[in-house]
Amino acid sequence: MSPRESANNVDPMFLSRWSPRAFLEKPIPEADLMSLFEAARWAPSCFNDQPWLFLYSKSEKDKALFLSLLMDSNQVWAKAAPVLAFALTRKHFSHNQAPNRLAAFDTGAAWMSLALAAHKIGLATHAMGGFHQDAAYEKLQVPRDKFEIQCAIAIGYRADADTLPTALRDRETPSQRKATQTIAAAGSFPKDLLY
Amino acid sequence: MSPRESANNVDPMFLSRWSPRAFLEKPIPEADLMSLFEAARWAPSCFNDQPWLFLYSKSEKDKALFLSLLMDSNQVWAKAAPVLAFALTRKHFSHNQAPNRLAAFDTGAAWMSLALAAHKIGLATHAMGGFHQDAAYEKLQVPRDKFEIQCAIAIGYRADADTLPTALRDRETPSQRKATQTIAAAGSFPKDLLY
Repeated sequence: MSPRESANNVDPMFLSRWSPRAFLEKPIPEADLMSLFEAARWAPSCFNDQPWLFLYSKSEKDKALFLSLLMDSNQVWAKAAPVLAFALTRKHFSHNQAPNRLAAFDTGAAWMSLALAAHKIGLATHAMGGFHQDAAYEKLQVPRDKFEIQCAIAIGYRADADTLPTALRDRETPSQRKATQTIAAAGSFPKDLLY
Repeated sequence: MSPRESANNVDPMFLSRWSPRAFLEKPIPEADLMSLFEAARWAPSCFNDQPWLFLYSKSEKDKALFLSLLMDSNQVWAKAAPVLAFALTRKHFSHNQAPNRLAAFDTGAAWMSLALAAHKIGLATHAMGGFHQDAAYEKLQVPRDKFEIQCAIAIGYRADADTLPTALRDRETPSQRKATQTIAAAGSFPKDLLY
């Protein structure tokens, strides 16, 4: 696949960050892992409600549990990552318990901060929508009326693509994007926007 | 208010970015504005669907329309910002039109990239959940069955706090955050987590 090319001048971190599947089985120092949550912590949010919660695997037992909640297609590669995490969203505002319309959106902002902070210190992250929903709520004991599990996240150091099963090796490359003009438009909703 | 202090070592950009209300009435060069959407463009997303769309004000007419859609409490300060934008989410996947459970979350990731890219080049951003929902869908001609408007965003250069109405001056300071241990926990859902 061709390398990523920026259509506009932009800080290189946005282009050089990507979501690999090949991870080294190398532990992450605790301080480095905490620095990722520290970055997430400072994301902006509606009413500064900070509706995000990250559960992460610390023990081998946590890791085995978290891994078992992923779809098989993700377990195949995510098992090598030293840390697995789940990004959760608190659905109601802390100050009045009203539904927070922007809770998922704000949690996405915290996740992006985490991903960029990881990239900055040589760690890679890969978010996964593919996990067993019912099992995840049950086994992680997440109160479904109050929290939503958004995604799982693999965190670790990149490994060579040839550590992956054959079928995944060819996909181990940064993905491309749509043209900038299809994601940013001047004025009202663009009538000619096609997907 | 006390300055922001990091509990863990983290790239300074996460702490130094904040959401001011005082903006200079100074235009943003087109290339700089485009570089923000370029950063958003490279955010990760479920199935690489890139479910975000940013509408931004280019003409004075756009600006007046966008401003009119904000709650009065936001219009008071956001009127000075040279660019207003709305962050939209496409609710269905492009490849099969199925509902995209992670669309808002992924759009939040794109927004965070935009906010950090702005900060990197000396621009400030401030997202607002407070806008007139029905009017925004109607006036921006957003197809409500297909897209969701997440928030409005003011973009521009910071001004002195004394350019703000008196009531807002004291609030013109970076907001604080909850302790890191309340947003990141090892293992399953923490039973003692209180809000």
